[in-house]
Amino acid sequence: MSLIVHKYGGTSMGSIERIQNVARRVAKWHAAGHQVVVVPSAMSGETNRLLGLAKDISATPDPRELDMLAATGEQASSALLAIALMAQGVSARSYTGWQVPVKTDSAYTKARITGIDDARIRADLDAGRVIVVTGFQGIDDDGHITTLGRGGSDTSAVAVAAAIKADECLIYTDVDGVYTTDPRVVPEARRMNVVSFEEMLEMASLGSKVLQIRSVEFAGKYRVPVRVLSSLTDPLIPLDEEMKSGTLITFEEDKNMEAAVVSGIAFSRDEAKLTLLAVPDTPGVASAILGPVAAANIDVDMIVQNQSVKGTTDFSFTVNRNDFVRTLELLKSQVGPAVGAGEIIADDKVCKVSIVGIGMRSHVGIASLMFRTLAEEGINIQMISTSEIKTSVVINDKYMELAVRALHKAFGLDQEPGQVVAE
Amino acid sequence: MSLIVHKYGGTSMGSIERIQNVARRVAKWHAAGHQVVVVPSAMSGETNRLLGLAKDISATPDPRELDMLAATGEQASSALLAIALMAQGVSARSYTGWQVPVKTDSAYTKARITGIDDARIRADLDAGRVIVVTGFQGIDDDGHITTLGRGGSDTSAVAVAAAIKADECLIYTDVDGVYTTDPRVVPEARRMNVVSFEEMLEMASLGSKVLQIRSVEFAGKYRVPVRVLSSLTDPLIPLDEEMKSGTLITFEEDKNMEAAVVSGIAFSRDEAKLTLLAVPDTPGVASAILGPVAAANIDVDMIVQNQSVKGTTDFSFTVNRNDFVRTLELLKSQVGPAVGAGEIIADDKVCKVSIVGIGMRSHVGIASLMFRTLAEEGINIQMISTSEIKTSVVINDKYMELAVRALHKAFGLDQEPGQVVAE
Repeated sequence: MSLIVHKYGGTSMGSIERIQNVARRVAKWHAAGHQVVVVPSAMSGETNRLLGLAKDISATPDPRELDMLAATGEQASSALLAIALMAQGVSARSYTGWQVPVKTDSAYTKARITGIDDARIRADLDAGRVIVVTGFQGIDDDGHITTLGRGGSDTSAVAVAAAIKADECLIYTDVDGVYTTDPRVVPEARRMNVVSFEEMLEMASLGSKVLQIRSVEFAGKYRVPVRVLSSLTDPLIPLDEEMKSGTLITFEEDKNMEAAVVSGIAFSRDEAKLTLLAVPDTPGVASAILGPVAAANIDVDMIVQNQSVKGTTDFSFTVNRNDFVRTLELLKSQVGPAVGAGEIIADDKVCKVSIVGIGMRSHVGIASLMFRTLAEEGINIQMISTSEIKTSVVINDKYMELAVRALHKAFGLDQEPGQVVAE
Repeated sequence: MSLIVHKYGGTSMGSIERIQNVARRVAKWHAAGHQVVVVPSAMSGETNRLLGLAKDISATPDPRELDMLAATGEQASSALLAIALMAQGVSARSYTGWQVPVKTDSAYTKARITGIDDARIRADLDAGRVIVVTGFQGIDDDGHITTLGRGGSDTSAVAVAAAIKADECLIYTDVDGVYTTDPRVVPEARRMNVVSFEEMLEMASLGSKVLQIRSVEFAGKYRVPVRVLSSLTDPLIPLDEEMKSGTLITFEEDKNMEAAVVSGIAFSRDEAKLTLLAVPDTPGVASAILGPVAAANIDVDMIVQNQSVKGTTDFSFTVNRNDFVRTLELLKSQVGPAVGAGEIIADDKVCKVSIVGIGMRSHVGIASLMFRTLAEEGINIQMISTSEIKTSVVINDKYMELAVRALHKAFGLDQEPGQVVAE
């Protein structure tokens, strides 16, 4: 007997029939002798419907009241799932975030979980019940309802799994796992059976939208094994088969070492690049450039500063493309003159492509294979940034698909894992 | 400055525009210096939508989960109203039943309020806020969400008014007050400015659907002055004009004494009558008849037993017409033979018409005027039952409208109050 947390997204809960399918799948696990806690999202479209009503009333609705409003979506879907489980003959009970309680800070609409009391859930599990816990929400120290922000149900599920020390947290979604890259760009992309926590973190932050990044961080902090798998399979698929499907996010390096040096290719098109040329290379110049940018609430992604030549240096960074015009204005009107930059070059027709792999830590030559592959395709590299398990380049965005496909092939990702291509 | 509770039904909260109108009305009261607590129902149709989803999943959904589900309707409408109030520049905050908390017993789907903690509401009122409290719901001793049953928001409002010792509880609805009888039957029916609590109780229990009867009982127990008035008037109508509209339910006999002896004519068509003839007049026979009926969960309304003749008596009672067939079966197969009844007579083509008036207590001849009026119209009386402030008759249901109109005229209800017709 193991203790398992299931999480189902809005699409999986999107209709009466789908809720009944979720109930059948959970009932199967329960019948096999497992203790199960289920964390559902709101029925698809419900959160948008509720927030739309609020927006119709006020352009700037109060965040506390928005959370009060939005939290009803998961409360309703959780009750419906409990009813569906009982219709399957399974003893079940639903709890809201405050009933558990899932304690959070008071940052309405984007609260962070500070603790979960597992006593109530444990008592009910011991009584043989399946427990349904509303995703996305909690309660602050003053007893106000809070929500965790979009995708917060992933974080709820992982946090509950951590609190009750679950053996595994199964995230059921509308894709069947994590891929080496986006299959829409590279048809040969393969589903990974196992991915390391660190790799998943890089993949999630680079735009693989399978899991909310905060849930991955939470899983890492509490070492919760998380498996991403499909909710679209037959709900009565045999358990052992189900447990071999999807992608397991693991903390055991051994498992991962069997995998390729590079695990996946991530990419993001929503990039824009800004460069200040001939900036005086003096202490404090980086802060003089990025301070005003941060103050304007603009998130900076990659930052590159090169070796100075003749007392000046070139300073480049990337921002989300939506912030491009605002950032360029800021540089021209304020930052450039203030730091005495020679010229400002800006380009919003760029993209970022990254190779991610925990094996990069112990293998040399990975980056050079990346650069050689891109050169062979005639793709110019505009910026480079590296970390222990990731190498990212900024290139012209018209080459994005070409670069991703070439790298996917060069690192052997279209083949079975274990076949290290570069060393 | 006074402390006022407003209650708005589902129709009044039925759209964004209507919620904004509610906010305008409440803002007017707040701007005039009053402390206001608002208790809204769910947006019209929402409770049915939610319960419909549950019914689609299970023919017998678990009551605890139904309450979990249904309570979201008021939570959402309350948050939207708070947002609308803030958009009007009014500081506002919404609370669920459990946040107040409104404590109830654990009778899911029909819970009863056992207590309300007013500390949180009072603190917020003192801070200058308008407080929105979800109707219809509470929390039991084990922290489970409960609901009060259909129409429960009326009871929530009156209970909150009692807890915070409000000066008045204003029930805004889609009618503009309590009438002497149904205007659809008697066009001359008048709106009452004042009605006594006892009269309202009889009117409500006899099918005047303006207020949920439990809310009237609650108002009586805690002596909360309740005013029923229209939410369809211009929300910015002057306050003094608004406070003269509607119908005040009062506990001060003086006020009522100015009114007519008979205040209103109530009626109900959903009646069926059953009679056991020649039942032995021995101790325990009433219980032998009605015990099995109650055990079958059939509500009995009027009960009449006459003086015995030659050791036997005739025993009649009425039930809701929906229970007629079931009750008749029960009498024929079980109760009749058991008590040795001579014959069973049954009729589901009957109705009940009642005159209600607190003045009846101190005036004789009221009942005889009723009977004479019906006789003059050629209407035969099949059963009579009386209480201190009500006289009810059962008649053939084809005469219902005729009887109501004749009685309305005979007791002078089409004229201004104060003109006592009978003595």
